Amino acid sequence: MVYNFAAGPAMLPIPVMQRVQEEFLNWKNMGISVIEISHRSKEFEALVDETDQLFRQVTGLPDNYEILYCHGGAQMQFSMVPMNLIHRKPGKKALYVETGNFAKIARVEAEKFGNIKVVATGVANNYASIPSLEGVELDEDASYLYLTSNNTLFGTRWDSFPDTGEIPLVVDATSEILGRRMDYSKFGVLFAGTQKNLGPSGLAMVVARKDLIGHALADCPKLMDYAVYQKEHSMANTPNTFAIYMIRLVLEWLRDIGGVDFIEQQNAAKAKLLYDYLDSTDFYRATALPGSRSHMNVCFHLPSEELLQTFVKEAEKQGLYALKGHRMVGGARASLYNAMPIEGVQALVNFMREFARTRG
Amino acid sequence: MVYNFAAGPAMLPIPVMQRVQEEFLNWKNMGISVIEISHRSKEFEALVDETDQLFRQVTGLPDNYEILYCHGGAQMQFSMVPMNLIHRKPGKKALYVETGNFAKIARVEAEKFGNIKVVATGVANNYASIPSLEGVELDEDASYLYLTSNNTLFGTRWDSFPDTGEIPLVVDATSEILGRRMDYSKFGVLFAGTQKNLGPSGLAMVVARKDLIGHALADCPKLMDYAVYQKEHSMANTPNTFAIYMIRLVLEWLRDIGGVDFIEQQNAAKAKLLYDYLDSTDFYRATALPGSRSHMNVCFHLPSEELLQTFVKEAEKQGLYALKGHRMVGGARASLYNAMPIEGVQALVNFMREFARTRG
Repeated sequence: MVYNFAAGPAMLPIPVMQRVQEEFLNWKNMGISVIEISHRSKEFEALVDETDQLFRQVTGLPDNYEILYCHGGAQMQFSMVPMNLIHRKPGKKALYVETGNFAKIARVEAEKFGNIKVVATGVANNYASIPSLEGVELDEDASYLYLTSNNTLFGTRWDSFPDTGEIPLVVDATSEILGRRMDYSKFGVLFAGTQKNLGPSGLAMVVARKDLIGHALADCPKLMDYAVYQKEHSMANTPNTFAIYMIRLVLEWLRDIGGVDFIEQQNAAKAKLLYDYLDSTDFYRATALPGSRSHMNVCFHLPSEELLQTFVKEAEKQGLYALKGHRMVGGARASLYNAMPIEGVQALVNFMREFARTRG
Repeated sequence: MVYNFAAGPAMLPIPVMQRVQEEFLNWKNMGISVIEISHRSKEFEALVDETDQLFRQVTGLPDNYEILYCHGGAQMQFSMVPMNLIHRKPGKKALYVETGNFAKIARVEAEKFGNIKVVATGVANNYASIPSLEGVELDEDASYLYLTSNNTLFGTRWDSFPDTGEIPLVVDATSEILGRRMDYSKFGVLFAGTQKNLGPSGLAMVVARKDLIGHALADCPKLMDYAVYQKEHSMANTPNTFAIYMIRLVLEWLRDIGGVDFIEQQNAAKAKLLYDYLDSTDFYRATALPGSRSHMNVCFHLPSEELLQTFVKEAEKQGLYALKGHRMVGGARASLYNAMPIEGVQALVNFMREFARTRG
């Protein structure tokens, strides 16, 4: 048994993986694979409809939101968000909160298309906490306010989302979509790369309030325009059919084990197990501050770079895979997405305790 | 046994499909799936290197060409080609040959970014043949000349590619990449959506002459810029890892059965079998004219719409899947990509003969 703590592409639910394997050569008794059928076949169109319905059922997404399956993963959204939204108001202005590396990349990209203002940043404490928007005046003529809901690299999350009034809130939820209950009516656009809680890589799932669709820049490339995805039900050209197929299975699995409320409790319990241990020892040090701690990515440091290398190697030998932190942050990182069972976290804590005992 | 004649996503080689299934839960004895590992792991980086090397080995791609794995399939290239190339010369001019629907969509998209001139079109005979460029004067200040090497909808192909002199030739080879020997040194850029001869959908493989990279428009979205893909070895963000993994297996399969020269002969024999039968009967009528006939997509008509419907349904009952033509063209279409064995074409011809005998 291997527990895979990779930050993404990441561990997927075992029953889903087994089912994909079982039916890989013969989907729905058609004698061919799901990856070999036309995206325009009635069978695949039904699959996309089912995926939409399951997502709405599991998340409670309101009817005035469209679901779009967009090419390119989350980073393509760093371009698509401004290209589709910034033009809505004459000032072409957008507000960004910088809570980590991906928020920064998104902000730099948006600067190509309009006037970007950083309204808060966590850079002062190296992104160890989410900066507060309390008392920050938000320009009411802004086209949107952008934030990253969970920061994969630095292991932080917004415990609650800010109230942005009439300014549409745009959220990169790549590393915690489906991981916690969210009130989607608060969002203008929410997007997620699929390779963490949704399925394999190479796609983004985007939910957009319908009134925000249809405002793309005049020379917007066809497959960057939300309106094209809306009009063609994400089939303006061939989408990543394997990813959509797997998202459908993951959503069904999530619904059947108890839905988002159940998994949110599970995720909280998993994170608590690890943070409680981290806070109980001086050998390891959690990097994210209480109040901003991610339930999806737990980052921590060891006393030395040498010990870190040994830690990662020995963990791997014991079936605890991919614990190395991101090169920008250093240290270790355990990603505990929906598919990670609590037994995996317990195995990790046991290993960490033993490692600290013998090396500390 | 099902023979799948879908135009794409399409049939993939059986040994490749079986191997994917076998190792789906446990890749390289790591205890996890290839879709669950980081694109930045040494194992996945090695996989991308191997894919590059196999492609170079199989196609003879010269060293002054870069291989890029781009998001969004072939249609994203309809935008990326002008966004990356049209700016190279002050007139922002490009030449397009319209040989079918996808060439037209590409031309319409390119008009957003520069001055587009259609130098030849097959519209007069409903794209039943490839128009000649003999005697057509090509503007020497054009940034590139664009054509579609094989037209999936209309079942035509360029038997040989035109000499465009100093003007870089850009080729959409989506539906025949790896299907025939090509002299890549004649191309500026060649691209292909992956869902026909390469693997599953949701990616494009792009080969670009190195001197043509680095000329993107100033406000080019990050993931539309060839230079970004070149610099980051297509890992500026998480690529479609499953597709790259499968392309590697498909390339290995192709190399091991005899390479492009072998498969080109096979494809010619398959196409000849079907065209010879079509030309021998009055019941069916091939739509593409001799001299322009695709070896990948064979399009034909039946005497009536009613007979067509019956034909498609009865064929499916006999395991001959997805023979309906594209809605824009009507009629029937048999796609005979690399993975289709000649036995499949023989089974189709046998069925067609029997169908004509009983219904003709």
